Parts: sequence; C-alpha cells; structure tokens
Amino acid sequence: MFGVTILGNNSALPAYNRHPTSQVISLNDQLFLVDCGEGTQMQMNTYKIRRGKINHIFISHLHGDHYFGLPGLITSYGLLGRVTDLHLYAPAALKTILDLQLNMSDTWLPYKLHFHALENASVLIDEEHVSVECFKVFHRIDCWGFLFREKRNPRKINAEATEKYGVPLSYYEKLKRGEDYVHEGKIISNDELTIANKPVRSYAYCADTLYNETLVEKVHHVNMLYHEATYLKDKQEKALSRFHSTTIQAAQLAKLAEVKKLLIGHFSSTYEKLDDFLTEAQEIFHDTQLALEGQTYLIA
Amino acid sequence: MFGVTILGNNSALPAYNRHPTSQVISLNDQLFLVDCGEGTQMQMNTYKIRRGKINHIFISHLHGDHYFGLPGLITSYGLLGRVTDLHLYAPAALKTILDLQLNMSDTWLPYKLHFHALENASVLIDEEHVSVECFKVFHRIDCWGFLFREKRNPRKINAEATEKYGVPLSYYEKLKRGEDYVHEGKIISNDELTIANKPVRSYAYCADTLYNETLVEKVHHVNMLYHEATYLKDKQEKALSRFHSTTIQAAQLAKLAEVKKLLIGHFSSTYEKLDDFLTEAQEIFHDTQLALEGQTYLIA
Repeated sequence: MFGVTILGNNSALPAYNRHPTSQVISLNDQLFLVDCGEGTQMQMNTYKIRRGKINHIFISHLHGDHYFGLPGLITSYGLLGRVTDLHLYAPAALKTILDLQLNMSDTWLPYKLHFHALENASVLIDEEHVSVECFKVFHRIDCWGFLFREKRNPRKINAEATEKYGVPLSYYEKLKRGEDYVHEGKIISNDELTIANKPVRSYAYCADTLYNETLVEKVHHVNMLYHEATYLKDKQEKALSRFHSTTIQAAQLAKLAEVKKLLIGHFSSTYEKLDDFLTEAQEIFHDTQLALEGQTYLIA
Repeated sequence: MFGVTILGNNSALPAYNRHPTSQVISLNDQLFLVDCGEGTQMQMNTYKIRRGKINHIFISHLHGDHYFGLPGLITSYGLLGRVTDLHLYAPAALKTILDLQLNMSDTWLPYKLHFHALENASVLIDEEHVSVECFKVFHRIDCWGFLFREKRNPRKINAEATEKYGVPLSYYEKLKRGEDYVHEGKIISNDELTIANKPVRSYAYCADTLYNETLVEKVHHVNMLYHEATYLKDKQEKALSRFHSTTIQAAQLAKLAEVKKLLIGHFSSTYEKLDDFLTEAQEIFHDTQLALEGQTYLIA
C-alpha cells in the first residue's frame, strides 16, 4: 500500500471544521508525517492513525499552520511511553523553539529525537524500499517540498524457467538484481528467468508555494503530486502577493510535469464550499482530486 | 451574566474527544481566556465563542497542555485583522517562545500584544466592574491560580424616597457610593434612599496543583471554585508524584474554603467515563459539577 491520508486541508485560519496542514504518507508498514498543524494529534485520534508507526516527520516551513501541532505531538509521544527514535526534518530554527519549550516545561522525553536541519536540496532518507528527498519551493520564508519514491523493485523469480535451467537457489539474489545466468556455456538472459515487478511509484508534496515552473523538473512524472491551491483562479494577484497558488496554477504545473494525478489543498478560509476548486483545476488537468480530511488517496 | 465555559477538560494527552485545558470566563460583555491548550481556537469555533471579545488571556504555567494553542490563536487574531490590544499574563519565558515563533515565521501582528510576566501574587486587573488576582499554586513547575471578582456593586436609587426628600440628580452618584443625605438639617440615612444591589460574585481557578491547604485562604467563600481533579481517589500516590490532585482532595479544599460550588476538571486520559469523578467528589462536597466541554456554568 502506498497512499496519503489528509489530516488537515485548510490554510492558516481554521474554518468550517477544516484544519491546518498535515498529511500521513503510508508505504508498506511505514508512516511518514508531513507537516503538523495545530490539532494534528487530535485528527490522528479521529482518523485512527497508528501514530506509533511514524518514525519520520517532515516540516515544510515555519509558518505556524504547518507546525504548531508538533510540540503537542512530541510531548504526547513521551506521555505514551514511546521509546523508538523519532527523526524530525525541518528548518534549523525549529530545534531552538522545541528545545526552549521542552526546557521551560521541564519535560524529559523517553525516546531519542533526532533533528535534521533542512539546508540544501538533498536525499533525506535512503532505505531499502523508499527514498525521501527535499527540494526548495517558493514561499515568503524558506520552504521545502518533499519527494517520496519507492525504490526500484527487485525482479521476481520465474520458477518454471529457473527449474528448467537448474538455477541454484544461491543465485536467486543475483537474478532479482537483473543478472543473466550461464547454463551449459550458454547465456540465459535475465528476462527469461525473471518477471518484472510492479513499477516504482512516487509522491511529491509542494506546499506552500508560488507557481514556479522550475518545479516541473522536480516532480516530473510522479504518480501523485500534491500542490497547494489556496485560491480560486480569480484571485491570482492575491495568491501572488501572499506567495500562494491558484487552482489553475496547480493544475498547470501538474500538466507540464506530466504527473499521473493531482491532489490540491491548503484551501483559504474565505471559501466554505470547495466544488469550484475541483471544477477549475479539472479544466486544465482532468485527474485532479480535492484533498479532503480523513480521506486516503492511493498512489498508483 | 457571570459564567465559565469549558473548552478543554482533559489532562495533557487528548483522549475520548476531550481537549487540553482552556476556559472562557464571561462577565457582563467581557470575555477572559484562562489557559489555551492545543485546539482552543477550533473549540472556540465549535462553541461559538466571540473571540473578538477576549482582551485578556491568562496562562497558568508552561506545560504544553496549557498553552500550545496560544501561538495559533495569536496568529489567527492577526489574520482576522484584530486591531484591539491584547493582554497576556503568563510566566516570563512564554514571551521568549512567542517572540521566537513570530520572528521565525516573519509574522507581523496588526494589534498590540502586551505581555505581563507573572512574578508575585498580585492584582493583575483592576477595572470598574472586575478585578483579577493571581496566586501561586503547587505544581512541578511555577504555576498560578487566578481569582476573578466582581467589584462591589453600587447601590440602586430608591426613586420614591429621593423624590420624597427632594434629592437633586447631581447627588445620585454620592448616594450610589453609600453617602447619607442632609434634608432640612436632618440626616437621611443612605439605607432609606437606596436599595442594595446584587452581592459581588467571584470565581477561582486552581490548575494544576497538589492538594494544599494554604489555598483555602485564597479561595475562601468564592461562588465557584475550579480545582483540578486529575485522578480518582485510589490514585492519591500517583497524584502526589505528578503534582496533581484527586477528586476527594479537590472536594476537601472546597469544603474547607466554604465555597458555594465546586467545578472539577483536568481529567486523566486513563479514564474514559467520568461518572466516578462526580460521585467521589460529591461524597465530600455536595455542590460539585464536572467541567464538561461546551457547557457554561453560571457563577451565582
């Protein structure tokens, strides 16, 4: 399973029971938290997120609607007796804030909190099945996007063919990595001995940001792009002045980047109904969905 | 109207849809916010609190469950275009934390935020109709209680009597303040010329705290005492080790202080049902109520 569950889809001012930004990305049995607006831990209760499975938290930038829920989550983990290490990727100043808050409350965490300061576009996680990269987006203050990629899946053994050529079990790992096999002096091609596995999938997260076409290269061909769309298209000037994007700008970026699906969110609290967000974006990029709280979107 | 509306009644770990501590005290047309746990601004939306009427916020101590909702509320006031001054009464270190958060997010507030550091038991507000005092309570870190008192109400004019003695209108203010009147060389007592107004009412807030009988003097005879009751009576040792109180300790303090009503809250997240909290407290002090979210308790 590779999916994203929305915990908060609103811009800074909570309204209409919509919450500030937070998302949970699940890949196999791992959960990754992206941004943590106020109330995220309550939203986790509401939507039954297995918060103990989260070992990595990514904070895009230091506007409060993207991290004011983090101190609460971090201290709640302590109260719940967490012992597993927790990795936090965020702009450097967040460490100063958290250290001060923990100090002032005389709080001791029973688990280790590793802080990774976001400084350059780079690979943050490089594990067996997944990699996570960060890249700059274009906001009023320093702000980061994140790219989640499955690793290239190993090929599957074609049991019938390996039996036919008597390939020993000890050679299977090499086959999975794509190597050929020599049988009675003849090269048997890997294609004949293995079956391609599912293609790798990817998810890119871009919030908060101005429309900027240099992002096309970063998110090219991803299976799902989350791009903020704070305003409807008639508010392009307002979007520009506040370093945000409109529906059609998000859709235009999805189109240029030839992504498979687009997910839009970070809706301004001036809008009660969201229907127009979908209609406008779909005019430019058909495979658009609204990021709705409590919904999980499969990345496929 | 003098009342308190509960926005959060739970201890640190949000559970069973109960939120961390926050209360709104309303007196005439003024609102006072006491503590501001994570999610307070959303609770204000849910319970239709007129947040623009709040000009004074009191933070008892710097454990996160009593102030992690404050940075969000403060920035939301900015986004809503607030221009009225806001007064914040809290331990000094909170200013450092807020300044850092506002700085890092490059946030400019369109209103003036006055920070008043809590340092000694003192009168914080002394207005025409209300006074607010702070006093020390007994927690693991520096922690404050608050006492809200109506000011002595001026006496009401007895129109029939003032007419009888021909008291001029210009003298009415003196009558209201309790002065006698001289009519044809004879002293007409104030009692005859005026009617006593409603007696003054008071509300005391004690969270988080150990049971400590020195508080009796502070909250003596208040109309309503809010005292934390984090645990049921069988958890007295746990309460002690965590600097909290039990049901019967809260009730015992109410009894000794001869208050009119007791309100208990800050329930531990280990309890799903709250019935036993009420039963246990009422065994000691009958006029006890549970602080329930969204409920308003009249102070009378």
